[in-house]
Amino acid sequence: MFGVTILGNNSALPAYDRHPTAQVVTLDQFQFLIDCGEGTQMQLSRYKIRRSRINHIFISHLHGDHYFGLPGLITSMGLLNRENDLHLHAPAPLKPILDLVLQAADTRLPYTVHFHALDTEGVIVDDAKFSVECFKVFHRIECWGFVFREKKPLRKIDKEKIGQYKIPSAAFDLIKMGEDFITNKGERIANEDLTIANTPPRSYAYCADTMYHETIAEKAKEVTVLYHETTYLHELEERAFSRFHSTTVQAAQIAIKANAKRLLIGHFSSKYEQLDEFLEETSVVFPETELALEGVTYRVL
Amino acid sequence: MFGVTILGNNSALPAYDRHPTAQVVTLDQFQFLIDCGEGTQMQLSRYKIRRSRINHIFISHLHGDHYFGLPGLITSMGLLNRENDLHLHAPAPLKPILDLVLQAADTRLPYTVHFHALDTEGVIVDDAKFSVECFKVFHRIECWGFVFREKKPLRKIDKEKIGQYKIPSAAFDLIKMGEDFITNKGERIANEDLTIANTPPRSYAYCADTMYHETIAEKAKEVTVLYHETTYLHELEERAFSRFHSTTVQAAQIAIKANAKRLLIGHFSSKYEQLDEFLEETSVVFPETELALEGVTYRVL
Repeated sequence: MFGVTILGNNSALPAYDRHPTAQVVTLDQFQFLIDCGEGTQMQLSRYKIRRSRINHIFISHLHGDHYFGLPGLITSMGLLNRENDLHLHAPAPLKPILDLVLQAADTRLPYTVHFHALDTEGVIVDDAKFSVECFKVFHRIECWGFVFREKKPLRKIDKEKIGQYKIPSAAFDLIKMGEDFITNKGERIANEDLTIANTPPRSYAYCADTMYHETIAEKAKEVTVLYHETTYLHELEERAFSRFHSTTVQAAQIAIKANAKRLLIGHFSSKYEQLDEFLEETSVVFPETELALEGVTYRVL
Repeated sequence: MFGVTILGNNSALPAYDRHPTAQVVTLDQFQFLIDCGEGTQMQLSRYKIRRSRINHIFISHLHGDHYFGLPGLITSMGLLNRENDLHLHAPAPLKPILDLVLQAADTRLPYTVHFHALDTEGVIVDDAKFSVECFKVFHRIECWGFVFREKKPLRKIDKEKIGQYKIPSAAFDLIKMGEDFITNKGERIANEDLTIANTPPRSYAYCADTMYHETIAEKAKEVTVLYHETTYLHELEERAFSRFHSTTVQAAQIAIKANAKRLLIGHFSSKYEQLDEFLEETSVVFPETELALEGVTYRVL
């Protein structure tokens, strides 16, 4: 399972029961929280997502609608007697804020928070099965996007070839990793004649609050699902630019340039009660678009 | 109109769609926010309370369930182009936290926040028609209660006596304030023979998170409505003591000692899904008790 569950899809002012930004990425047994707007802990309860499984939280930037739920979540995890370490990836100025908040409450958490300040683009989490990269996006203050990638899976050995070339099981691992095989007779069998490709690795790119900028398409190149903000409809392109946000058409253009398979749009301005036009405008340019709706899990495939 | 609207009645961990602490006191055209747990701005919208009318916010203490909604509310007031000054009465360590939060977001509010650090018991807001006092309660960290009092209203002049003693209108104000009247013939007429008492002033005392402590009854002496926390049922008195909280029976005892007219109880632990027993246990000791339920406005009379 690789998917993303939307907990908040609204821009700064909560409205129409839409909440500030938060998303949970599920990758097999792992869960990651991206951004943590006010009320995220309530949204986690509402959609029955266990906070105990979240070991990494990624904060894109320090506008309140992306992290004002974090002190409450961290505190509640403590009240629920969490023991596992929590890794927090965020802009550096968040650290002294959290330190002061915990100090003012005289709170000693029963678990360890590892604060990782975002400072250089590249891999920030590297697991056997997946990696997470951060990259810069273009907002009024320092702001980051994140790409979650499955690692390239091992190739599968064609079972018929095992008997045919008398391949010992000790050689399986190297062959899966792409090595050729040398038979008893000294004959080299090319790896592609022994193995079948596995499903290609999937990826999810989250582009937080940002103005339209083509380098984002480079960072999100070939992703399976691209989340791009669309704070405004196309007609407010100038307002979007002046506030370092994007429109429907701009998000679609990034999806095309990135050659993304699917596009998810969100961070809707409180000006708009209805969201239909967001989908219509974006789909005209990039048909494989979906609205990021709260409580819905979008599969990454 | 003098009343209190409950926005959050739960203790630290939000549960069962109960929210962390926040209350709005309405006193004629004035509205005051007491505490501001996470999600308060959404609760204000849900119950259609206009944030623009709130000019004073009182924060009892710096446990997150009493103020983690404040940065979001202050920021949203700015996004809504608030112009009126906002007065914030809170423990001193809140100031550097808010400063850092606004600085990290590069936010310049379009209105002025006056921060008033709570440090001495007594009157903190003094208006022609009402006053607000703060007093210390007994929690694990510095914690304050607040009393909202109508000012003693002027006495009413008995209309029959105006003709009888030929009282000129120029003398009315002094008589309403309690002065005697001297007639043309030099005769002194006692004030109580000229005037009728107005309705007695009403008051609301908010006792934030606190363990049982009799001095609270002194501070809330003779109040019309007393809000006292009841985090736990009676059987958990020891746990209440160890965590600096109170039980049903303890809140009722404070109401009796204070000679309060009515008691409102809240800050229920997330252990309890049903609240009936809170009302039952408290009412046995102090019959004029009500549960503080979210969305409900309790009249102070």
